[in-house]
Amino acid sequence: MFKLIKTEGEARRGEFKTVHGTIQTPVFMNVGTAAAIKGGVSTLDLEEIRTQVELSNTYHLHLRPGDKVIKQLGGLHKFMNWDKPILTDSGGFQVFSLASLRKIKEEGVYFSSHIDGHKIFMGPEESMQIQSNLASTIAMAFDECVENPSPYDYVQKSCERTTRWLERCIKEMKRLNCLEDTINKDQMLFGINQGGTYDDLRIAHMKTISQMDLDGIAIGGLAVGEPAEVMYHIIEQVIPFTPKDKPRYLMGVGTPINILEAVERGIDFFDCVIASRNARHAHIYTEDGIRHLMNAKYKLDDKPLDEKCDCPACRNFSRAYIHHLFKAKEMLAMRLCVIHNLYFYNHLMEQIREHIENGTFKQFKDEKVELYGQKI
Amino acid sequence: MFKLIKTEGEARRGEFKTVHGTIQTPVFMNVGTAAAIKGGVSTLDLEEIRTQVELSNTYHLHLRPGDKVIKQLGGLHKFMNWDKPILTDSGGFQVFSLASLRKIKEEGVYFSSHIDGHKIFMGPEESMQIQSNLASTIAMAFDECVENPSPYDYVQKSCERTTRWLERCIKEMKRLNCLEDTINKDQMLFGINQGGTYDDLRIAHMKTISQMDLDGIAIGGLAVGEPAEVMYHIIEQVIPFTPKDKPRYLMGVGTPINILEAVERGIDFFDCVIASRNARHAHIYTEDGIRHLMNAKYKLDDKPLDEKCDCPACRNFSRAYIHHLFKAKEMLAMRLCVIHNLYFYNHLMEQIREHIENGTFKQFKDEKVELYGQKI
Repeated sequence: MFKLIKTEGEARRGEFKTVHGTIQTPVFMNVGTAAAIKGGVSTLDLEEIRTQVELSNTYHLHLRPGDKVIKQLGGLHKFMNWDKPILTDSGGFQVFSLASLRKIKEEGVYFSSHIDGHKIFMGPEESMQIQSNLASTIAMAFDECVENPSPYDYVQKSCERTTRWLERCIKEMKRLNCLEDTINKDQMLFGINQGGTYDDLRIAHMKTISQMDLDGIAIGGLAVGEPAEVMYHIIEQVIPFTPKDKPRYLMGVGTPINILEAVERGIDFFDCVIASRNARHAHIYTEDGIRHLMNAKYKLDDKPLDEKCDCPACRNFSRAYIHHLFKAKEMLAMRLCVIHNLYFYNHLMEQIREHIENGTFKQFKDEKVELYGQKI
Repeated sequence: MFKLIKTEGEARRGEFKTVHGTIQTPVFMNVGTAAAIKGGVSTLDLEEIRTQVELSNTYHLHLRPGDKVIKQLGGLHKFMNWDKPILTDSGGFQVFSLASLRKIKEEGVYFSSHIDGHKIFMGPEESMQIQSNLASTIAMAFDECVENPSPYDYVQKSCERTTRWLERCIKEMKRLNCLEDTINKDQMLFGINQGGTYDDLRIAHMKTISQMDLDGIAIGGLAVGEPAEVMYHIIEQVIPFTPKDKPRYLMGVGTPINILEAVERGIDFFDCVIASRNARHAHIYTEDGIRHLMNAKYKLDDKPLDEKCDCPACRNFSRAYIHHLFKAKEMLAMRLCVIHNLYFYNHLMEQIREHIENGTFKQFKDEKVELYGQKI
């Protein structure tokens, strides 16, 4: 299902065929946690900014409106009015970062809802069932995401359990895809590499999951506290043991620089809330670095957010207008900025793909890293 | 500039030519108080829902970002990216409803900003200057809007002052339209009829302002506490004394029923925040009355907000999805509902215009009043 079109060093230009259309990689997935992009952005807006994959959160949707509700309504695609690929995370990361009163057992995790405190159990089977109900294109395996740094012994034990959980995920997903009333019987499953910041644990775990029957391989547990250099190092360590014929997804990453560095090291899929979160705080990505739009100097600035940008916000509105909207607390401010920042990321990926095709990625990446410096 | 195309009883189908295009009347203006429609709706969305006139508030824009800022940026049309007509109110209503520590004198009103408390003076000349800086298509005269009911003597004195203020507005607007650096030298001015709920004061005031050099006549100071029947009665009293060759604008009105009743009595222009305010509280206009979308019964309802509606929200999203968005506090909820409710109003006006053209307005109005009952 993953076709390698071109490589330049470790960087890969690929195509990933799914039941909801073909994804051109490298790709940045746009995050719509609760089946909506924050800031009032709709799936019609996503079409306009050429989003390829939307990402929603299993944990949030399980709690509200409930995955069974979404199943009854025909699945997440119909619910959101989005016919392109959707990736759902497994809920694991949110269980460990948002929920309270967690208790991790071999069977799964007991925790309390961050909304109303009610007790919930989620294990590999439950996560697969929820994602099957959501009927996303790609489901993620249920794993434990440990903080960095964590003690070696704990990470090792956690990794082993994550592997056992992955086996249960694969088995359960196969069973669900054969059930009569499953909406998406072609639902795919990506496994997740863990191992904290320990090279040997990371490599051993990657070797193990590489042998398993998975549609793609993710690298999880990075960008959770460790320096970027440590992240790049881990990627370099595990990539040689990652199957070449499957897409590779670096979860929750990252800044434009992070993405360029990771593409250079062989990553195909990305997602991060930073683009839309920054937008909602009036921090705008531009070719010249991040623009802080609340700054008083934009009050009379009639130029677009980014003069080189072709997004709907830049084609139609000025810095002065959006600066005013933020000051007046008008929701339109956030919406226009989220549209711009997501477009910036989507367009960055288009440039990356084009440069890998042309064999000029390394040069492009070096120029961007030089240009952005530490600014983005 | 106002061309009467067809009448049916007092109801009028007209066209009002402005420098920013021709307005088909009767028309409902869509309110964008601070140069933005609340709920994250942009002027691109307004285009899509066939909005003819956008209305912004002089008081709000004077305080933030400042009318001089907007003038420097080329006027409100350029600022908002909207090339169709814009009407600005005079600031009078907001000075009397929002600002604190008011002191009304012959020269104008001394008050404190509701944002930061700083002291401001606004009189007829200041209001015209601000609106000239904003460069709207239609400026409104600076008046005093009294509460209903108010004592006869006070209303009479206030009316006389409002007339003197109107003379000053006309003079100042003429002066401003001749200045070299005025952006819109064709800015039009509507006068405002006042007189509370007293027939004789209303009629006397209307007779006076009807003789004055104005581009349109508004009826102000209604829908501010009195029953709807009182409002209809006042309209009936003053309409015979209103020029036939000028558009008539009933300020701040109202519900769909109010609009139908007022069109029947000869009104051409309307505006009201109720459409978008209701939307933001999940109250949706439909042919069957107002739908309260937070109601749990919509959790699994995959029909559009209004099955007979062709707006972008109804064409693409379900009640269940938007219900979920409200529950999850996603901004997109408000945006979709504001788009729907404004479209409902805009579409109602289209139907009204068509029925007046066909001579079937009375029948249409009676059917709607019967259908909506007290529901809308």
